[in-house]
Amino acid sequence: MNPKLATIEPSLIRALNAKKRPTSIDLGLGEPTLMPQQRFIDAAARQTSELGMKYTLNAGDVELRALIAQRYAYPGMAEARNVCITNGSQEAMYVAMKTLLDPARDEVLVIEPAYPAYGKIAQLEGITVRSVGMPASTGFQYDADAIVAALTPATRLIVIGSPANPTGRVISRAAVKSLTAALLARGGEPVWVLDDELYRELTYVDDAGSIAASYPYTIAINGLSKSNALTGMRIGWTISPAPLCDQLTQVHAWVTTSASTFGQRVARAILSEPGAISEQAAWYRTQRAAVLEVLRGSGLTYVEPDGAFYVCVRLPHGTDSLAAALRLVDEYDVVTVPGRTFGNTLEGWLRLSWVAPIDAFREGLARIASAALV
Amino acid sequence: MNPKLATIEPSLIRALNAKKRPTSIDLGLGEPTLMPQQRFIDAAARQTSELGMKYTLNAGDVELRALIAQRYAYPGMAEARNVCITNGSQEAMYVAMKTLLDPARDEVLVIEPAYPAYGKIAQLEGITVRSVGMPASTGFQYDADAIVAALTPATRLIVIGSPANPTGRVISRAAVKSLTAALLARGGEPVWVLDDELYRELTYVDDAGSIAASYPYTIAINGLSKSNALTGMRIGWTISPAPLCDQLTQVHAWVTTSASTFGQRVARAILSEPGAISEQAAWYRTQRAAVLEVLRGSGLTYVEPDGAFYVCVRLPHGTDSLAAALRLVDEYDVVTVPGRTFGNTLEGWLRLSWVAPIDAFREGLARIASAALV
Repeated sequence: MNPKLATIEPSLIRALNAKKRPTSIDLGLGEPTLMPQQRFIDAAARQTSELGMKYTLNAGDVELRALIAQRYAYPGMAEARNVCITNGSQEAMYVAMKTLLDPARDEVLVIEPAYPAYGKIAQLEGITVRSVGMPASTGFQYDADAIVAALTPATRLIVIGSPANPTGRVISRAAVKSLTAALLARGGEPVWVLDDELYRELTYVDDAGSIAASYPYTIAINGLSKSNALTGMRIGWTISPAPLCDQLTQVHAWVTTSASTFGQRVARAILSEPGAISEQAAWYRTQRAAVLEVLRGSGLTYVEPDGAFYVCVRLPHGTDSLAAALRLVDEYDVVTVPGRTFGNTLEGWLRLSWVAPIDAFREGLARIASAALV
Repeated sequence: MNPKLATIEPSLIRALNAKKRPTSIDLGLGEPTLMPQQRFIDAAARQTSELGMKYTLNAGDVELRALIAQRYAYPGMAEARNVCITNGSQEAMYVAMKTLLDPARDEVLVIEPAYPAYGKIAQLEGITVRSVGMPASTGFQYDADAIVAALTPATRLIVIGSPANPTGRVISRAAVKSLTAALLARGGEPVWVLDDELYRELTYVDDAGSIAASYPYTIAINGLSKSNALTGMRIGWTISPAPLCDQLTQVHAWVTTSASTFGQRVARAILSEPGAISEQAAWYRTQRAAVLEVLRGSGLTYVEPDGAFYVCVRLPHGTDSLAAALRLVDEYDVVTVPGRTFGNTLEGWLRLSWVAPIDAFREGLARIASAALV
């Protein structure tokens, strides 16, 4: 067996989900509850009847890649050759870390609270992971100075999710400016940034900075899972400078050959219709307003989400987040995700998703607020 | 950059394909020219309108996994928990090698002529690759004694494709019996076999052995790409003992999360309809008969394929296979794949696929037979 497997902790999210009952209020979900736009599925099925289901190029359908590149229009990365289509954004992340880093010398810096896969992929590849925690005192805001202070001479990649899972935090324009200026000023081998934009379409604040728009050593990652309720379609992508994109494509070819042709047809139909990628964002905006109202009345301390569909709520002082989540599911029939899943800085908190109907969210939150957890 | 990338040769198949013109006779194709069975695509699209497009479990839909396990009914591997659904058989191969082998000590043995990805995946993972060539004198037949003789104390995995790409060779019942007996007699840590069955539905001989049916330390790999003309669907799977399947599923989860829910719905519809997975085999049997007739009249030396949709033909003595393939595409407008792509033992040969219309195959073969290649 590959000895690296034994070094990786099993998923707490999965363990909690396994305790879910049919009656449970599920605030642990990491995927939309909306239905996907069926017209795009039907269009892809019709195309298949004409064109069959052959491989695309390893990097994906050229027209789809051009549509994606043009939509974001990142400087120096606005053409088809800058885009590689992957089997979901998970493979995009995997391939990016595997391609870019030399496990013998390079380190990755993860900014916590963070989606746990960032660190686990690095561990699987034998890459040294360092982390820097954004403090609860600022609601886990991205702090460029703290990030820069955590760099070591070996850091070759920083992973930033914005909007972030779990906090819903978005990196501000000022933080992007300050971070990219500091990185460019370092000299020597560049530090790359893996800019996880999977929740980008679900951004609710005006002051959202974009690393990919500002910094040339960026690999932006995105996909249709969250914006279009297509988690099961497995369509993600990388946007990067062309020479790196060629390397990413090679690794992607060895790992999975190519992404689903059917999924790419759905994606092309979505990207070809103006507004289709952001159509469902309206529902999330409405839901967020309702969620904030419930939160304000709950007496709980929480981080107002700038984006995504999660909210982090603070447990009573001294409460262990895993113990609390276990009691909540066992005794109160509410599924949540313990903060420690996302790093030490979120210990003492829970991540709740708010894609469930608002009445279920309200009831779940009431149970959390009144539960005897300490 | 990951320094392993630089150690892997770029794909010759890709380089040849890039020279293809609209007028070219393409005998280089690695995928079916048939259309997929549209009824299964339509069924999956209808299901999506009811159920949306959520993630499946990491290992895939339980019902699909049960259908697959039951269809092959390998001893000790006949339940859903023995199956992990992957993004095509490429990811199945990737995850199997990555999970099973410790790059610091384990070696993989590749039996040539071999599909080049076997060795390239191992190189990407830093795993030592040894190869053993089956000789041209027997038409590259699988020889159990030669395979066993090539094992070293460090060999932990043997990769065998049957039917094989490129030769179309199937491992015989006698060879399976003799190989598995020798492996079981070794004692110590078991040697695993990666049994690549991707062309299994396209088998044309009665004497086809099955390693997975005979040997407990087997990971069988398959998918719907070739049997159902669904290369672009990216649905493959592993069948393995349950404890290993759990580990494979973990690695699969970190690499890609899960396979396409849409693709899994198509797969479940196919596996649920008796005969649907072997429906297209009839066309290949008819085509093979016509191909063999053309080959018999060609004056060329060839390996009669037991399975798959390729045939290897010998070049005039002393001909370099890459130089010949380049001249054939440049001067004779025929795309082929040079034998050296599949290992030294196939140098001096070409791989031709016979999924093109029979008249095109006949014309292509005539050009190869009459070309001035030396």
